Amino acid sequence: MTALGRWSSQYLNYSFGNPSLLEQALSHRSVGDANNERLEFLGDGFLNLAIAQRLYELCPQYSEGELSRLRASLVNGASLKAIAVSIQLDQHIIISKAERSSGGARRASIIANAVEAIIGAVLLDGGYEAARQVVNHLYLDRLNNLPSPDDLKDAKTRLQEWLQARGVDLPEYTVEHVAGADHAQTFTVSCSAEGQATRAEGRSRRTAEQRAARLLLDILRHDE
Amino acid sequence: MTALGRWSSQYLNYSFGNPSLLEQALSHRSVGDANNERLEFLGDGFLNLAIAQRLYELCPQYSEGELSRLRASLVNGASLKAIAVSIQLDQHIIISKAERSSGGARRASIIANAVEAIIGAVLLDGGYEAARQVVNHLYLDRLNNLPSPDDLKDAKTRLQEWLQARGVDLPEYTVEHVAGADHAQTFTVSCSAEGQATRAEGRSRRTAEQRAARLLLDILRHDE
Repeated sequence: MTALGRWSSQYLNYSFGNPSLLEQALSHRSVGDANNERLEFLGDGFLNLAIAQRLYELCPQYSEGELSRLRASLVNGASLKAIAVSIQLDQHIIISKAERSSGGARRASIIANAVEAIIGAVLLDGGYEAARQVVNHLYLDRLNNLPSPDDLKDAKTRLQEWLQARGVDLPEYTVEHVAGADHAQTFTVSCSAEGQATRAEGRSRRTAEQRAARLLLDILRHDE
Repeated sequence: MTALGRWSSQYLNYSFGNPSLLEQALSHRSVGDANNERLEFLGDGFLNLAIAQRLYELCPQYSEGELSRLRASLVNGASLKAIAVSIQLDQHIIISKAERSSGGARRASIIANAVEAIIGAVLLDGGYEAARQVVNHLYLDRLNNLPSPDDLKDAKTRLQEWLQARGVDLPEYTVEHVAGADHAQTFTVSCSAEGQATRAEGRSRRTAEQRAARLLLDILRHDE
């Protein structure tokens, strides 16, 4: 068995019938046309479905919105990167020398994309049930330790709900300043409610508002 | 066979083992807890995967980005609404009297969501292969008449590529005017390139820019 075959058995709990599919899934676009980008497209679709199915089964009490938030937290780049690290994926990324020497094999987006491509490769190699088992294997800990959907709400929503629960006025957001050229703007936004105000910056108005809301929520909760 | 059973056989090419799943898939949230929202979550995931798989098979020449654009055009609300109309779905929506009398059963989002919920119900009822066949059945015409991925690019991208192909300067976008209150703003944006300029309005800067770009591209193509 090849080193890659042993790695696949150990970390994916799956043996490829056609090992070249696994090689392609690990191949960054810097190595040429036989790269993992189309497999990533397929794997992304399968991962979304497989997680949706597990959450549908595991969480009969949750609404569609809660299921969507949970899924988004499981399939985002940060989760995929953490999974890639846990299966030592960076050691097996097939990448050009130039990309590797600039740290590409450990870059979050490259290894996160490769996780999705591997799932796509398993789907092609072993079919739906095999791919489902690999996803469940990779996500075992996360599916056994799901966060509360409320904790996944964005800060503006949480702030609004906190204020509504106390029957007080909703927050006001004001863009105080916009700096920088058209494609590199920095927004400064203030958020005020309950006589308190916070201010935050972001590369978009939305990001700045979320940060200001989170700061204000921290203050209000602390004061309570 | 019930009327709903006949409809399902005729338009979905599928007979439910458990017809109550189909009823739930058709039930708008206005009728209570046994509604179609969770099934829609599941069906949305399956639809995305099934279309990804078909495009992966049908279009070996397309990049991940082209596949993504094609998929987005097939699973968006407008496509789902058109499919819902083609299978006369509005006649079978289960909805409160109040919602129905306000035209709810024909509202685009309600019937589009129900299409996804039906796909989720087939997945639960008949499994992966059955759901795959229903998606292929509903999308038969669209999958046989795929647009060109280039035609699906947004207007700003198409304008940029048009200008780059002719080696001329990229367009400039300028926000000329912002009117209205914070949550109901109207942006007026101008777009200029090649000595021509257009102006358009939108509820977001991005929307206004896209419209102005489309107008300018029409002018430039016409002049060429």
